[in-house]
Amino acid sequence: MPSKTTAAPKMPRATLEAVASEASVSVATASKVLNDRPGVSPETRERVAEALRRNGYRKRGTERAYAPQIEIVFESLDGEWAIELIRGAVRVARAHDLTVTVTESGVRHSVAPGWAKAVSRRQPAGVILVASDMPPSDKFELRARNVPFVIVDPAGDPAPDVPSIGSTNWSGGMAAANHLIGLGHTRIGVIAGSDDLMATRARVDGFRSAMRAANLPIDDTLIISKDLAMEASPEPGLQLLERAERPTAIFATSDIKALGAYEAARALGINIPDELSIVGYDDLPVAHWAGPPLTTVRQPLREMAQEAAKLVIRLRQEEPTSTVDRLELMTSLVVRGSTAAPRA
Amino acid sequence: MPSKTTAAPKMPRATLEAVASEASVSVATASKVLNDRPGVSPETRERVAEALRRNGYRKRGTERAYAPQIEIVFESLDGEWAIELIRGAVRVARAHDLTVTVTESGVRHSVAPGWAKAVSRRQPAGVILVASDMPPSDKFELRARNVPFVIVDPAGDPAPDVPSIGSTNWSGGMAAANHLIGLGHTRIGVIAGSDDLMATRARVDGFRSAMRAANLPIDDTLIISKDLAMEASPEPGLQLLERAERPTAIFATSDIKALGAYEAARALGINIPDELSIVGYDDLPVAHWAGPPLTTVRQPLREMAQEAAKLVIRLRQEEPTSTVDRLELMTSLVVRGSTAAPRA
Repeated sequence: MPSKTTAAPKMPRATLEAVASEASVSVATASKVLNDRPGVSPETRERVAEALRRNGYRKRGTERAYAPQIEIVFESLDGEWAIELIRGAVRVARAHDLTVTVTESGVRHSVAPGWAKAVSRRQPAGVILVASDMPPSDKFELRARNVPFVIVDPAGDPAPDVPSIGSTNWSGGMAAANHLIGLGHTRIGVIAGSDDLMATRARVDGFRSAMRAANLPIDDTLIISKDLAMEASPEPGLQLLERAERPTAIFATSDIKALGAYEAARALGINIPDELSIVGYDDLPVAHWAGPPLTTVRQPLREMAQEAAKLVIRLRQEEPTSTVDRLELMTSLVVRGSTAAPRA
Repeated sequence: MPSKTTAAPKMPRATLEAVASEASVSVATASKVLNDRPGVSPETRERVAEALRRNGYRKRGTERAYAPQIEIVFESLDGEWAIELIRGAVRVARAHDLTVTVTESGVRHSVAPGWAKAVSRRQPAGVILVASDMPPSDKFELRARNVPFVIVDPAGDPAPDVPSIGSTNWSGGMAAANHLIGLGHTRIGVIAGSDDLMATRARVDGFRSAMRAANLPIDDTLIISKDLAMEASPEPGLQLLERAERPTAIFATSDIKALGAYEAARALGINIPDELSIVGYDDLPVAHWAGPPLTTVRQPLREMAQEAAKLVIRLRQEEPTSTVDRLELMTSLVVRGSTAAPRA
């Protein structure tokens, strides 16, 4: 069941005069900021932008004119989540007589400079950004042009001032650990990838909590946190499995990392699940096809994109509000063939 | 190396008078057909449409006005090819300052009624249709509105009057068979799926040719051709493997069908590749992750979409011609762990 943190009360529309007065600038200066013209210091620009945003001020004439499409923006389409998110967005858009435009921003964990201007020129009905955050200037650009936007974030933890859809990372990590603990594992390795992603930290923290609740010691040398250029690399798995006293189970914070651990186990002749249990995270289609099929924590990617599309359509229809939506969809454990009780 | 069947000579623009005269109707009638107004018999409409098409006639005023986007249309986004095709189209579009709109038509092997009208209202720079064919009325609609379109067709064999991008299905089937024959297999099963897809037939024919060239008998009862609602079903694999004298190898005309055969082998305790070799078709990402990794015929899906995007952009820039492009990209065999010599 989704947990929803805020309702969305309406606010009256402000005049530019009121906004200028609130930011202690002239109407001319406020207008320059609104229309992105030069001659305003960065500090003043930021102060006016904030006042415009706070008041939900929109440019005159931007209320109705928009293209009948939602734009979904990925850093890169090479990510494994892309198709499920596109599927979700297309289904909801279609029900509202909208199409979905897919663009690639091309900058890791964020969007490229100039992106927001290009989007606002296209004037989509709304934007779904698959990323963790965007620069303040881009947020201002989209808000000033009345382009509603929502972040879908299967990897990180988005900025608090942007409506966003995520999933319950901490609970997911806990569910993975509890499954392994329930099978009898006590010595569990973790392949965690980059520590700068909040989602990764939440997943690992959920894992730690479950271990503590079961009164099991946590061996920090069994938790491999590194930024893997190639997520599927067998290297972290080899690091865990070549130890004298190797773990009997591994929790990987993504399916692709779990498949890297498969490769490591295969290279060392270690049988899954007889000699090693592995739990992944995401439930990509590949989890079903791996040999053996991968036990994993399911992120409802398609549903997340559906909720994002619904939210962005709702934001388009409503007056701007001072509150920000954050919706977290539930993760769930999918048990397949890669986990079993440890050998006695 | 791509084989390209035609060049594209230019044609002079026809007047509506000339078209009407050619179709033996009045200009008023020709205009009705052009503007999709009632009061014309179906036969006359078809004759005028054909004359308009043959002359590359475009509506006045439709030359320049189009949205800076390419539309890629899938019957369903649930297909396994979708993301690779989207990736290819987005990369090329981006290089031309275009975006890509993704829509779903929702009708098997073809497009839904009314689809072409909806597209021409959106006036994209061009359309990439992932399907085998479209109704003549839709072709006419897009041509009359000057929306260039190209078919990308990883599954079937498109109509001869539409520019299209495919891959070398017959050669692919031959390469799969030659690989198995080279390993020493002589009794090879085929899981072929629906026989109404030309691509399937071409792949199976390539297989047959390789068998004949090697002077091996072809046992037609080992070729399972059926339309599988669930491609991944283990059922055809079970049918082949539960026989008294079972084949030592299977060629499946898609990776997903090959993975269905994996399930069948797993259910019967048959080891891949020691007791059974399997070759797939497509080289989806999942082929790399299957256990064991799947030997398969690679369709260059991303490159096919790139060529489609380039072609549709070229069609937008050029005068209409009376010739039709057909580009077939080369398939190639990717050898992984699912194939080996048969047991002596």
